[in-house]
Amino acid sequence: MPHPSQPATSLMERKRRLVEQRIIAAADELFSANGFENVSVTDIAARADVGRTTFFRYFGDKTEVVFAREREVLDSVATLAADGLGAALTTTEAVELLRPVVLEICDRVTTDDAEYERHSRLLALHPELQARAALKAQQIADMLTGALSSSGTEERIAMLAANIALACYQTGLRHAATAGALTDETRAAFEAALMLGRR
Amino acid sequence: MPHPSQPATSLMERKRRLVEQRIIAAADELFSANGFENVSVTDIAARADVGRTTFFRYFGDKTEVVFAREREVLDSVATLAADGLGAALTTTEAVELLRPVVLEICDRVTTDDAEYERHSRLLALHPELQARAALKAQQIADMLTGALSSSGTEERIAMLAANIALACYQTGLRHAATAGALTDETRAAFEAALMLGRR
Repeated sequence: MPHPSQPATSLMERKRRLVEQRIIAAADELFSANGFENVSVTDIAARADVGRTTFFRYFGDKTEVVFAREREVLDSVATLAADGLGAALTTTEAVELLRPVVLEICDRVTTDDAEYERHSRLLALHPELQARAALKAQQIADMLTGALSSSGTEERIAMLAANIALACYQTGLRHAATAGALTDETRAAFEAALMLGRR
Repeated sequence: MPHPSQPATSLMERKRRLVEQRIIAAADELFSANGFENVSVTDIAARADVGRTTFFRYFGDKTEVVFAREREVLDSVATLAADGLGAALTTTEAVELLRPVVLEICDRVTTDDAEYERHSRLLALHPELQARAALKAQQIADMLTGALSSSGTEERIAMLAANIALACYQTGLRHAATAGALTDETRAAFEAALMLGRR
């Protein structure tokens, strides 16, 4: 199984992470208390005790804060891509290379049950956030494609495999009633997908 | 292969379609000439020679006009769902039931080469439109899930199959350099997906 990169631990990096976490926590509290549409960047910055300029060094807008976790996931997929995944000769092999990566992503996005459920509730209420989530998912598939093809897998095989891996993840996401179920549901989807050609 | 429903042809319906087409054509021209971000609903309504109120009877906002074709696709998938797709006992059977439906969708979204290419160019320029496109694609997968499960396919099988069908469509979309290639590229992706698990 590919090994995720160690987090950078320089003093500046630690400080950067603390500020980021403070902004995320402030936004989470305000979104839950007042509703996403009634919270401004100014509100979030004030609650996190940072200036608006600082806020915008970390996030493009308030929607980006909602997807902070997905951004981390994209970063870790990028790290995996840099490490190399190995070359697959068939779509089956490529899906098998991606399976542990996607299950690792499932584990990461569900480390905090309460956060996962707040996130799901927020998305259920806001179609524009669902659109952003769908785009992030597609970006993850694109990065998985890149990770495979930069390791020597033919681009056509890489792209189909990455989109099938995304299909398994989306299926897991829809069936997981709780954060804890996501990894198992996604694993079951991979098992079913990898039986497609067998009768 | 499932048969798409015949368009309604009452006088009112024909008139409705003409107005809708006029709005779409006006928006297309203005987006191409001035850029998506510089065109307002008022501009589009004026060019189409309708009032703003009429515009909003047809479209929720200017972004919806960009996805008018996808909305038609969603409508035709809904019609298929109402007709029933047949019950599948395995994910493989379910993917095979969806294949002709998705290939039919490919044919429909590529009937007008120039329109397809304008649409692709517009999306490439605007991340917020890419997000909306990703959401529409996910909605199509949800409707395909519904079409299968209302025909008696187990929901878990239906959802995985629909997402795999979407994976094939997305792969086709990325590989099709021209509108004409979409159906063939998507068909090739289905063939590869239906070989998964064979070595």
